[in-house]
Amino acid sequence: MRRLESQLAGNKLDFLLISHLANVRYLSGFTGSAGALLVSDDGAVLFTDGRYIVQARDEAGKVIRIVIARKAPTLAAAEWLAARNRAGRRWIGIEPESVSAGLRDRLVSILPGKQRVRSAPPLVERLRMIKDREEITRIRSAVELGASLFRRARGKIRCGTSEVEVAAAMEYEARSRGAESMSFPTIIASGARSDMVHGRASAARIPRRGFVVCDFGVILAGYCSDRTRTVHVGRPSREARAFYDAVLTAQEAAIVAVRPGVRAAQVDAAARRVLRRAGLARYFTHSTGHGLGLEIHEAPRLAAGQDQVLEPGMVVTIEPGAYIPGKWGVRIEDVVVVTPSGCEVLAPAGKELVDV
Amino acid sequence: MRRLESQLAGNKLDFLLISHLANVRYLSGFTGSAGALLVSDDGAVLFTDGRYIVQARDEAGKVIRIVIARKAPTLAAAEWLAARNRAGRRWIGIEPESVSAGLRDRLVSILPGKQRVRSAPPLVERLRMIKDREEITRIRSAVELGASLFRRARGKIRCGTSEVEVAAAMEYEARSRGAESMSFPTIIASGARSDMVHGRASAARIPRRGFVVCDFGVILAGYCSDRTRTVHVGRPSREARAFYDAVLTAQEAAIVAVRPGVRAAQVDAAARRVLRRAGLARYFTHSTGHGLGLEIHEAPRLAAGQDQVLEPGMVVTIEPGAYIPGKWGVRIEDVVVVTPSGCEVLAPAGKELVDV
Repeated sequence: MRRLESQLAGNKLDFLLISHLANVRYLSGFTGSAGALLVSDDGAVLFTDGRYIVQARDEAGKVIRIVIARKAPTLAAAEWLAARNRAGRRWIGIEPESVSAGLRDRLVSILPGKQRVRSAPPLVERLRMIKDREEITRIRSAVELGASLFRRARGKIRCGTSEVEVAAAMEYEARSRGAESMSFPTIIASGARSDMVHGRASAARIPRRGFVVCDFGVILAGYCSDRTRTVHVGRPSREARAFYDAVLTAQEAAIVAVRPGVRAAQVDAAARRVLRRAGLARYFTHSTGHGLGLEIHEAPRLAAGQDQVLEPGMVVTIEPGAYIPGKWGVRIEDVVVVTPSGCEVLAPAGKELVDV
Repeated sequence: MRRLESQLAGNKLDFLLISHLANVRYLSGFTGSAGALLVSDDGAVLFTDGRYIVQARDEAGKVIRIVIARKAPTLAAAEWLAARNRAGRRWIGIEPESVSAGLRDRLVSILPGKQRVRSAPPLVERLRMIKDREEITRIRSAVELGASLFRRARGKIRCGTSEVEVAAAMEYEARSRGAESMSFPTIIASGARSDMVHGRASAARIPRRGFVVCDFGVILAGYCSDRTRTVHVGRPSREARAFYDAVLTAQEAAIVAVRPGVRAAQVDAAARRVLRRAGLARYFTHSTGHGLGLEIHEAPRLAAGQDQVLEPGMVVTIEPGAYIPGKWGVRIEDVVVVTPSGCEVLAPAGKELVDV
């Protein structure tokens, strides 16, 4: 919060109205589903509604003033500003990606003419990119819990089992071990369904032969994990094995490329280069990875054109994949922490092709 | 889609750019996590990205033209318009609550000056308020599956069990029976934690005595369920029983108030009136209910000031509650379908106070 407050003046902001809930949580500790935080050099005020009277006090009340409102927290903050900001402080920053176009129109109509709404740069997201020691500890715990679910998946995956049964077993294990929830809908994509990058576990039964892409993550103490492993049901053909090995080589090349000073695009290029050599470039239809933390997708993005320079403390996924429509797909994913000299893979476990 | 297209001209729109994913799904069948639908009287075009090549074709390809883009679908749609809309058609409607302020700025900068971006009214949300027979069948199935989870909860709830263990058992059951996921984070709020309206299941152990609020729902074939039951661990005191009965009476009064022609606010008032007579009005800190369907919260809202008139085919929750900070809370919730003569409660099951 202090670092954020110190950046306001340099960004020509008198107030910053934070409406992105992950940012509200990051700064205040408040985890409710309705909240807005108004930050200025006078300190911060948290706006929420009547459902969260107790929770807001417990989570954020020690350090932050709380206002319980009968309307949307962002609008409540604007009315509070309209009523109290008489000192002529003018520039109200909003988070343009977290305020809808309609809400901005309403904010502008509430604030008196002297107060102007401006789109602020992603100041909190930039702070959040660099994880502190406590955050890395939490992410490590989440990734370790997440990684352990794959054992359950391997035990369940067999011809004739439905994809959702596999997902259900993993999710039960996650919950039983204390996960707040999954960090995204579990992907179990078997057989030809493995050609879908985002093939949520369905009622489809696992076929006698073929790849099964398992992409899964948990939220533990607020922080996300994300991991993909691809197994093969039945003995893989030579072609399947070569396909898998190409993706694995690409993933490892990208991990090797991660170190401070490297641009995000270079990590993406490292994976893409391997798949190009294997003649699979056109089947790698997504980016190589993304930051994660309080959210499953955070800055930086590891993709072509991304100039963000990696720094120690960033936490990113490395997850190249290749998908041949109608045939099959493979993805392999780990979470890595950028260290002063390179990166550390969290919960590094054997990525050799397993047949079940 | 035909009904929507017929409304464009009357709303002075040449195109409507639909970016709210539930609306995209409602109109096109596409369930991916990145998509935008551009509707005009020439038909619709679905924009998505490379992850969804196969899925988009399978889900929406029979009736809708698909464009695979390398950028955010909404921006891709704007570039498509900028390049092709040469006929001088001018008004591009956006969904102001589903487009961020930042994204609208980018849309405006992409579109040539003659094309103007306008906030459209919630046309698709209005269509979605009235469910057709197929949708009601799906919601009924979701509510029935959801309701069955409460048996698992009752079997698990006992002194010393953690709240997340109860939630995990319910969620496993839901997944095993085919639910795509829960429709929101399961709430298991025991003992004094029941004073929190949104007390997600935590590691807290269920105490020897007190209420346990269980609020849970599933997504089945795209449609949501939502249900709350409150049980009591140990024999309830006379005071606890009276408190519970007041909330139950309020819930039943609200259900009786639901019929075509009634305004949403009147249903809310019916519940509030009962709690006021019981001296509990100030502890009822949220609204009485909300529509549900493809989303867990849809129009209409059943709250003070809401003038929406109820019509047959609307599906809403009825969920009054009362929460005394530091002491306890009770909420009881059903999903009802507005019928020509009143309403039908889905999966109506005994709401008498159960002690476990």
